[in-house]
Amino acid sequence: MKIERYQIEEHNSKLAQSHQRKFEFLTQDIQGTEDIVQKLMKFQIAIPSWALGTGGTRFGRFSGGGEPRSLEEKMGDIGLLHQLNQSSGAISLHIPWDIPQNIQDIKALAAQYGLRFDAMNSNTFQDQPGQEQSYKFGSMQHVDKAVRKQAVDHNIEVIKQGVALGSDSLTVWLADGSSFPGQLNFRRAFENTLESLQEIYAALPEDWKVFVEYKAFEPNFYSTTVGDWGQSLLYANKLGPKAYTLVDLGHHLPNANIEQIVSLLLMEGKLGGFHFNDSKYGDDDLTAGSVKPYQLFLIFNELVAGMDAKGMDHASGLGWMIDASHNVKDPLEDLLQSVEAIMMAYAQALLVDKQGLEEARLQNDVVRCQEILQNAFRTDVRPLVAEARLRANAALNPVGLFRELQVREKLIGERGYKTVATGL
Amino acid sequence: MKIERYQIEEHNSKLAQSHQRKFEFLTQDIQGTEDIVQKLMKFQIAIPSWALGTGGTRFGRFSGGGEPRSLEEKMGDIGLLHQLNQSSGAISLHIPWDIPQNIQDIKALAAQYGLRFDAMNSNTFQDQPGQEQSYKFGSMQHVDKAVRKQAVDHNIEVIKQGVALGSDSLTVWLADGSSFPGQLNFRRAFENTLESLQEIYAALPEDWKVFVEYKAFEPNFYSTTVGDWGQSLLYANKLGPKAYTLVDLGHHLPNANIEQIVSLLLMEGKLGGFHFNDSKYGDDDLTAGSVKPYQLFLIFNELVAGMDAKGMDHASGLGWMIDASHNVKDPLEDLLQSVEAIMMAYAQALLVDKQGLEEARLQNDVVRCQEILQNAFRTDVRPLVAEARLRANAALNPVGLFRELQVREKLIGERGYKTVATGL
Amino acid sequence: MKIERYQIEEHNSKLAQSHQRKFEFLTQDIQGTEDIVQKLMKFQIAIPSWALGTGGTRFGRFSGGGEPRSLEEKMGDIGLLHQLNQSSGAISLHIPWDIPQNIQDIKALAAQYGLRFDAMNSNTFQDQPGQEQSYKFGSMQHVDKAVRKQAVDHNIEVIKQGVALGSDSLTVWLADGSSFPGQLNFRRAFENTLESLQEIYAALPEDWKVFVEYKAFEPNFYSTTVGDWGQSLLYANKLGPKAYTLVDLGHHLPNANIEQIVSLLLMEGKLGGFHFNDSKYGDDDLTAGSVKPYQLFLIFNELVAGMDAKGMDHASGLGWMIDASHNVKDPLEDLLQSVEAIMMAYAQALLVDKQGLEEARLQNDVVRCQEILQNAFRTDVRPLVAEARLRANAALNPVGLFRELQVREKLIGERGYKTVATGL
Amino acid sequence: MKIERYQIEEHNSKLAQSHQRKFEFLTQDIQGTEDIVQKLMKFQIAIPSWALGTGGTRFGRFSGGGEPRSLEEKMGDIGLLHQLNQSSGAISLHIPWDIPQNIQDIKALAAQYGLRFDAMNSNTFQDQPGQEQSYKFGSMQHVDKAVRKQAVDHNIEVIKQGVALGSDSLTVWLADGSSFPGQLNFRRAFENTLESLQEIYAALPEDWKVFVEYKAFEPNFYSTTVGDWGQSLLYANKLGPKAYTLVDLGHHLPNANIEQIVSLLLMEGKLGGFHFNDSKYGDDDLTAGSVKPYQLFLIFNELVAGMDAKGMDHASGLGWMIDASHNVKDPLEDLLQSVEAIMMAYAQALLVDKQGLEEARLQNDVVRCQEILQNAFRTDVRPLVAEARLRANAALNPVGLFRELQVREKLIGERGYKTVATGL
Repeated sequence: MKIERYQIEEHNSKLAQSHQRKFEFLTQDIQGTEDIVQKLMKFQIAIPSWALGTGGTRFGRFSGGGEPRSLEEKMGDIGLLHQLNQSSGAISLHIPWDIPQNIQDIKALAAQYGLRFDAMNSNTFQDQPGQEQSYKFGSMQHVDKAVRKQAVDHNIEVIKQGVALGSDSLTVWLADGSSFPGQLNFRRAFENTLESLQEIYAALPEDWKVFVEYKAFEPNFYSTTVGDWGQSLLYANKLGPKAYTLVDLGHHLPNANIEQIVSLLLMEGKLGGFHFNDSKYGDDDLTAGSVKPYQLFLIFNELVAGMDAKGMDHASGLGWMIDASHNVKDPLEDLLQSVEAIMMAYAQALLVDKQGLEEARLQNDVVRCQEILQNAFRTDVRPLVAEARLRANAALNPVGLFRELQVREKLIGERGYKTVATGL
Repeated sequence: MKIERYQIEEHNSKLAQSHQRKFEFLTQDIQGTEDIVQKLMKFQIAIPSWALGTGGTRFGRFSGGGEPRSLEEKMGDIGLLHQLNQSSGAISLHIPWDIPQNIQDIKALAAQYGLRFDAMNSNTFQDQPGQEQSYKFGSMQHVDKAVRKQAVDHNIEVIKQGVALGSDSLTVWLADGSSFPGQLNFRRAFENTLESLQEIYAALPEDWKVFVEYKAFEPNFYSTTVGDWGQSLLYANKLGPKAYTLVDLGHHLPNANIEQIVSLLLMEGKLGGFHFNDSKYGDDDLTAGSVKPYQLFLIFNELVAGMDAKGMDHASGLGWMIDASHNVKDPLEDLLQSVEAIMMAYAQALLVDKQGLEEARLQNDVVRCQEILQNAFRTDVRPLVAEARLRANAALNPVGLFRELQVREKLIGERGYKTVATGL
Repeated sequence: MKIERYQIEEHNSKLAQSHQRKFEFLTQDIQGTEDIVQKLMKFQIAIPSWALGTGGTRFGRFSGGGEPRSLEEKMGDIGLLHQLNQSSGAISLHIPWDIPQNIQDIKALAAQYGLRFDAMNSNTFQDQPGQEQSYKFGSMQHVDKAVRKQAVDHNIEVIKQGVALGSDSLTVWLADGSSFPGQLNFRRAFENTLESLQEIYAALPEDWKVFVEYKAFEPNFYSTTVGDWGQSLLYANKLGPKAYTLVDLGHHLPNANIEQIVSLLLMEGKLGGFHFNDSKYGDDDLTAGSVKPYQLFLIFNELVAGMDAKGMDHASGLGWMIDASHNVKDPLEDLLQSVEAIMMAYAQALLVDKQGLEEARLQNDVVRCQEILQNAFRTDVRPLVAEARLRANAALNPVGLFRELQVREKLIGERGYKTVATGL
Repeated sequence: MKIERYQIEEHNSKLAQSHQRKFEFLTQDIQGTEDIVQKLMKFQIAIPSWALGTGGTRFGRFSGGGEPRSLEEKMGDIGLLHQLNQSSGAISLHIPWDIPQNIQDIKALAAQYGLRFDAMNSNTFQDQPGQEQSYKFGSMQHVDKAVRKQAVDHNIEVIKQGVALGSDSLTVWLADGSSFPGQLNFRRAFENTLESLQEIYAALPEDWKVFVEYKAFEPNFYSTTVGDWGQSLLYANKLGPKAYTLVDLGHHLPNANIEQIVSLLLMEGKLGGFHFNDSKYGDDDLTAGSVKPYQLFLIFNELVAGMDAKGMDHASGLGWMIDASHNVKDPLEDLLQSVEAIMMAYAQALLVDKQGLEEARLQNDVVRCQEILQNAFRTDVRPLVAEARLRANAALNPVGLFRELQVREKLIGERGYKTVATGL
């Protein structure tokens, strides 16, 4: 399944007039739309290889049809997304679910789809068939050195795979923790984890980064050994300059102020990456912006302000990735909706009258502060995001075109109805 | 302090051209804007008399200047708000903070400001000077019949005041509960409360309603005797057809799905009133729409759908009120922002393609369902709300005009800097 | 694997003296220990057939060895538990995971192990191989009548199985809900669910009960159609006298006061069953009493008080079941710990000085109320629970004997290391 | 009001026999009771001067009688507590609520009551009459340097008061934060706060410590500038070796694992102080151990283990204080209950079989880990705590004696019924 250039053009030409009217309306009110459109065009969000199939919960999984059966088909899916929105030009691999059989072929395929290899993801939260040691009681925190060594070796192997592919970062998410009071010596777990991470850090190429992801709970239900941003930052600081914290929106306790965390981590120079999704209860892994779009905007507002304060490039300064699970939506449509929501939040953040905001803050004019933020948020920025796509030869309405072209039906035709994406 | 008609007109004429352009842009895309504007014009949100001064927490209170010193001045403040937005045409009184000295004068004053008397509020959560029985351990739940009787009598007195003023409903919010395990016999507390409510219900005029408000916690920190919608509904059903549940947005446990509660209560014919505010942690009483604007929209989406399904009139079908506390903003500006946010959420809900949504639901097309809702939410409806104000002779930019006219400065001039609104 | 009577006796004789000293110490301080021991002996907690293997999360599952491969082996495991504690004399079956091949054989086996058939559990949250309709978008709430019919028919089939086995109740847990705003018409979902439940209710034998279980979230992450006790009670009331609410400790929003819910449901005559487990974050399904033992006691305090007020028999008045998932503990040891914790909470509740408590409440003597409750909770009641076991010919230290006898090692010997309990 | 030595002795002699029996029973089972009793005798918990009157919420305050009207009377109240339990031998002052008029007199009074001056508390969350700058928009975070300077100067003044009294630490709790998105530049707020704290730190005597307390929310409802342990640790690390984090049990987001936080802070050498209370929803400030006694034990388990690992003295290694609010209980009885609960949790932690626990952890024997912890928790340690009191000439039953001697009635006789503790 490949989308032809002319199909996108036909689609766009049907919508062009209506889009043009809306875009022009916006440009009359807003200064600097051109700059915003340019920034939107540069902004790329990586798609993880495990997000292309139907997700599930411990209670069940209801897979759809035409899901990718191999790394090549996963890349094909991301290629389709990228054709549709030109904002998904990166893939984040998960080892061992996506071990490339032939590195050169995979690199050539990526080049063909216009995809970059984003952060590599290791897996020490599951036991693989034939694996010597079990991660039942943790990996890098484990009381048994042999288990920790296996986990460290696996991560070093993942780095090697990443080097071969042209990636430059490693994301370490540890499920390590405990499910019962007393189970863990917290301090020893911390020390073991730190030691393990140090061994991985030592194997990191000069220009690589390692992202230490934190999560409040699940799959452990009493404690998590990298449980919040404070712990992640402790590890990152002890590790060194190549170590950073990674924020996943769904990994917090109820009511956490994530935008403040983001701001502080940027201030400390230790925010490395970002996983987008949305949630109401826990790590629900829903479509970005589907439940709390204002929070997403507030986070972007801090991201933009914090990166600007450090002179960081928005597109390349952090690792941007979607990390969602698609239980009831078509995975590809879900990803298109997520990317759209992220681009909108970014556009709104770019719209914020930063000078006016700082002035209002200096006067403690809280009413005005809110007005300035909400002025940006209430603006209908869809034409800006659409314009960025239009200029990049993507579709004005990605989900619409996905359906017009019957992409899913064709994928089912090619791959069959009963498929299971590797790793799910 | 009174705003003159010409001042509003001057203000509007300056903004007219820009507004007109935006409004016309919207009408080209949206069918039925005329109907929406008409509905917005009819929609009135009551202002509680206690929301006109600076609020506070147990840790402190930082009052502003020019706060109303009497019921008359409170009505004057709401009169100003209503002039500015023509959407605040009702006042909700709190007894004993606002006992009218002369009913006829107060009614005449209300007529002059164009204000209706919304639900009356009783107070059995504080001890008033000279009061015989103490509410330290509850009021209607109290183990001592004398305390319960005092609470019942007070409510009946509030009804009488309300009848004289032309109100037609009573809101009962009970702080009753317990702060420690064991303190309360839950069943006896429920029975006492029910019996007390029944005595009040018996005193309710034929055309009156009583709203039983629930709240999860605070000021009691272990249990609350009307603690959630399930309990409130139990009371309301046992009381009879004039009893209803009242939803305050800040009165829920973390992560509660309030829109679902609203929908079910409407389905059961037992939703009576609504208190608007916003919150992140508990009953934070922040400006409506300032933290979770999408939630506010989702709630309105259920309100509109549920009321339409029952053939209820949007404006008069439920009691609409703001219940917020203004700690760091000018109370009047805060209320203007709240009303604006509520009107926007209502407008967005009216914009939802209901038929398309039902069709998508019947096909389990979750992607499309989200698209339809977010299409309404992402639309910049500010011109619709402004148009409704313009037609009603209110200000295109209420907060802007409030500042242009230096309303607060003039109120300080009239009332002085050091004032405390009664009841605070 | 069978435990011989003499093995238990040998075990007990070793511990007898120490136990006796502790038990006698208690009897000197506490009046009515004999009555408490009698009640503890009668109290039986059902074990669900799915709790005998290792559980898991969506991230992974680390199974142990010797897990039961068939219904017969599951019953064997519960038989072992029951021999060890004489408090687990009931099994709760899950259809289709445990469809008996031969009803008479299964009944005979149950009789041999001394097991009763507790509530039957249906499953409409997963798709079974060959199933015609999918539950991806719900079962009893489903927009498609055919899906609802399939779900109803399945439940009626489960009732039939239950009748044949001698069970007398059906537990309906519905995963139905939605994961995204807009996905569901809440009212229609409620009506469809109610209609489906009514069809099942109509098929219920005269002396049967149906338990409508509620859950706040998971596996749906935006709304659940039977989401809280208020909704469950609405359904139960609309269904009729044979319908009840079932409380699972892990199915609430953060900070919910579960003991108050229990108390109100008992007051309304609508509490039907109880699922024990413990949790810190969500439906963590941990060992009962492992995280919040005081909450477990407070709940039992309300259960005992509420049942006594209604003249209900403690042992038979409600359906008592453990519903936990064993991710890092041996399932059988985990269940032994859960039963022990439950028995202790029950014993502590029986110890509460009820008259003194009511007097203190009538005087609003909160300090004394707390003292009375904590006096019971702080008492070391382990000797009471052990004495009940001793008299019933169970082990004084069930986990200890389980290990002494190397039960798990023997089960692995019999069944092999790599087994997966059906349904997991 | 003073309790005479003979009154305590008479009280104890009545209870002696029963106590002796229980204590001896315990010593037969438990090794090292003597060591535990010694440690309990040394352990002292400071009482803050503001906890001696009735607290309140923003909704109301129901004061009791006989509350202290001056610093001298507050010290008298703590003197009474200390006579009753010999575990409350320290007072924590709050400036400006408790500015001593004559330092020498106050020191003499403290010596008479056997009280030490614990950490000093500053107040920059309220405006005092005549204060030049307002803290409405924060203190140390404030955009206006003059406000920050006032806050810094106040803290330096508090240090001076503390030096004169013989205290050696300063607790800084900042209400600083924001109530609305956009209100605050998070990074500038952090920098301003850090700069202010650095100025205070520079004024700290050589042997003093400063405790940086964190709190998730309230009185600000969107962000708090020292909002969690991660932020507090950042400040403490940037300040230097005399700066520490202070943990208050009620200052966390829902479901936080406080014991893990405690463990990590001890590991980092940065835990300085501890505020005891209990809570279900937020900073409810309830009696310690009244809602979650197991959590209190788990925290003490980490405190003891962590302090032992660092060779810290339990009694003097950290600042121990109660920080509760008494809304429905007699403040003095409430404090007696809190101290009792804290001593019990400490005793239980001392009972834990540490070697056995570490061994079980090394074997990932989660069942055994839980058993070991719960074995300590389930032990009725009240006789140990009572024995420590008995040996220290305190009352076997402090609340009981408080009531026997009609302390409250006598205080009302001395001070009158209508009093308000300063600062409330």
